[in-house]
Amino acid sequence: MQKVHIGLIGGGTVGGGVVNTLRKNGQLITSRTGVSLQIRAVAVRDPRKKRNVKISPSIITDDWQSVVQDPKISIIAELMGGTTLAKRVVMAALKQGKAVVTANKALLAEHGPTLFALARKHGANIYYEAAVAGGIPIIKVLRESLAANRVTRLYGIVNGTCNYILTRMKEEGAAFYDVLKDAQDLGYAEAEPSLDIDGNDAWHKTALMASLTQGFWVAPESVHLEGIRGISQLDIQFADVLGYTVRLLGIVKADSKAKDGRSSVEVGVYPALVPNGHVLAGINGVNNAILIRGDIVGDTLYYGPGAGQDATASSVVSDLIDAAIDLKGGSDCRVPPFEAHDANGFVTPIDETCSSFYIRLSVTDKPGTLARISRILGDARIGISSVIQPEGHEGASVPLILMIHDAKNAAMSAAIKKISRLPVVKGAPVVYRVEHFD
Amino acid sequence: MQKVHIGLIGGGTVGGGVVNTLRKNGQLITSRTGVSLQIRAVAVRDPRKKRNVKISPSIITDDWQSVVQDPKISIIAELMGGTTLAKRVVMAALKQGKAVVTANKALLAEHGPTLFALARKHGANIYYEAAVAGGIPIIKVLRESLAANRVTRLYGIVNGTCNYILTRMKEEGAAFYDVLKDAQDLGYAEAEPSLDIDGNDAWHKTALMASLTQGFWVAPESVHLEGIRGISQLDIQFADVLGYTVRLLGIVKADSKAKDGRSSVEVGVYPALVPNGHVLAGINGVNNAILIRGDIVGDTLYYGPGAGQDATASSVVSDLIDAAIDLKGGSDCRVPPFEAHDANGFVTPIDETCSSFYIRLSVTDKPGTLARISRILGDARIGISSVIQPEGHEGASVPLILMIHDAKNAAMSAAIKKISRLPVVKGAPVVYRVEHFD
Repeated sequence: MQKVHIGLIGGGTVGGGVVNTLRKNGQLITSRTGVSLQIRAVAVRDPRKKRNVKISPSIITDDWQSVVQDPKISIIAELMGGTTLAKRVVMAALKQGKAVVTANKALLAEHGPTLFALARKHGANIYYEAAVAGGIPIIKVLRESLAANRVTRLYGIVNGTCNYILTRMKEEGAAFYDVLKDAQDLGYAEAEPSLDIDGNDAWHKTALMASLTQGFWVAPESVHLEGIRGISQLDIQFADVLGYTVRLLGIVKADSKAKDGRSSVEVGVYPALVPNGHVLAGINGVNNAILIRGDIVGDTLYYGPGAGQDATASSVVSDLIDAAIDLKGGSDCRVPPFEAHDANGFVTPIDETCSSFYIRLSVTDKPGTLARISRILGDARIGISSVIQPEGHEGASVPLILMIHDAKNAAMSAAIKKISRLPVVKGAPVVYRVEHFD
Repeated sequence: MQKVHIGLIGGGTVGGGVVNTLRKNGQLITSRTGVSLQIRAVAVRDPRKKRNVKISPSIITDDWQSVVQDPKISIIAELMGGTTLAKRVVMAALKQGKAVVTANKALLAEHGPTLFALARKHGANIYYEAAVAGGIPIIKVLRESLAANRVTRLYGIVNGTCNYILTRMKEEGAAFYDVLKDAQDLGYAEAEPSLDIDGNDAWHKTALMASLTQGFWVAPESVHLEGIRGISQLDIQFADVLGYTVRLLGIVKADSKAKDGRSSVEVGVYPALVPNGHVLAGINGVNNAILIRGDIVGDTLYYGPGAGQDATASSVVSDLIDAAIDLKGGSDCRVPPFEAHDANGFVTPIDETCSSFYIRLSVTDKPGTLARISRILGDARIGISSVIQPEGHEGASVPLILMIHDAKNAAMSAAIKKISRLPVVKGAPVVYRVEHFD
């Protein structure tokens, strides 16, 4: 049995979860793996702060540098969040040749190439199972279990807050801001909710999964992003009548044909209409799910809690175990954190990709309205697959829904701009993509 | 880049899938992992047999011993099936200190302890991702990703043939033997279907997953087994009316309290009524799904194709990659094939466990019938939670359904025996368990 000493940087929710998990199952882990994980130090901002999880005062410090430099510590778990100090911590640990475990998706999505290069230079490794989808072991699945596959499609529900809001809006007919308030009261959403509802959290996770599966670095900036802020109950209802459920999806689609000898990939995060029969339409509440299509295995799906103290700790500790086993076996870089294997890959700009669309307009209910709208679409060579004028709406303007089967995003944007300027169209058009999973 | 030479024993469906996968994605795998997987020899029974997958005649042989003994070959993939010759092959390879990859659940379930001990003795490893749930990477999930957790519950739909039959019976109202015939015509079921429909295949898989999660060896013989042969359309329908879907489940339940200081576990394979809203009720067709409850992470679910040439090959090749990386890094036994970590664990005999039950009787429709039946149950201290006498049934005997909330299996069996002897009860009682996932 080999003792491996760990330094935690951060003693908040995730750090506390890790301490709890090792306290509860440390012996089990040792008997399973032959390594004993010992937390030797926990660096926190304020050592005197009252904590929910009991940590022995003798191992608490406010000096993270002393933890990173402690020669007895061979694994540093960065659990503080943020991207500035966290970056310094991780870089300092890697420079010492120490293994780094992190749950920090923003740090990796924004500074991955720098950190991975530094890890390689110092023969260290970075483990980040908890950075994507909380307790679902999606990183190991992508890096190891599906390694025989070219991943051609990935669809992820990777933000539990958004999924909770969309689920309750559909199930209860509740309004966006009412459900958001509930989510905040229940602790599912932050007081400042933009990281979740504007999609940034899903954006970082999707960029990471795109990078891992496609083999070239996908910077978040190259990923198209739309959140769900202010999504209307009307659209949730119309989508349902049409047989769809709205979900915020992180999407990766490898084009089957290379462009100019380069492999192009679509990567985006946006609310999408998912057919009601599809498995992702049935993922409800705060849970996450990731559907992956491999060219050999076909479709597999991974489902579970995407956040929370214990779920995240489960993934962090699985990384600590991995790191400890690797250190014990002298195979520190057995599976490197990120292996670029497609020097020519690139993300197709959203304008050049094709999508299906749901469009809701508020229009004046008089003859000729539809003709004007369809002329604009026709001129743009965009075919309408169906037009729905829901009954029971009266007044100065009524809803008109257009379903579009496959249009280039640039052409669609331009047409929508023109349509929005028509005098018969009131207010801004609502546009969502429809996913067919083909 | 390091070349690793592989010998395949078996050139049938799975072997062909492995050859295809390496032909298609071999280069990708090398650029991802830094190892090049080279098939150096394929041992088959009849080298002259026509095959769907092209294998160069120069590497085909009918002499498996020459393959196992080839000093250039460091990984042996046993893909022949069966448990007699396959056991000899695996033992011979392990004695040479070679890594073994196998998709053979029966071999491992029946001879696991012998093979794992031999592997340990010779410093070799056994990889078996494809042995359970085909393309779903459940073995790595259990051995590595969830290693921080005590697994308290596991519910698996791990036989695609049974799930296909049960799905179509529910969706179309078709009879068992009609759907079985279709499944055979489509290649989902063998001409001799007993391995699937009598539950043996799920039994081997469940025993393996029970062993892995509970940390002591669970021999298949200690696992209670009931298949789905001849399941009646009537029960599928009544279950649906009551709000349930019938699924063949492999179940592992760790008792929360140790008995006499020993941890007891319930392990069984049987058709069960699953509440319609539960995620496992929604797993349709030939797919597999495994729901795992970890004491830290909570519930996670893994879903995908449980069989088929390519899905199985995806898992076999992921094992080949793992083995090759381990050999390259000199960490051959990084994660040993099975680590007993609970010397005191045991499987509770089914008679001593408690279940909820669905019971369908054919009874003579006259006064006093229910009184006689409920007296027997009352004497056995078994409480009836509801009685349903479906309408629209006439004749000498009519169906009577009893739902039982929590009865000891032994008491239930004894009571059913008595009930079946009542003159008012015609034919054999039908008894299925009901799962509440608590």
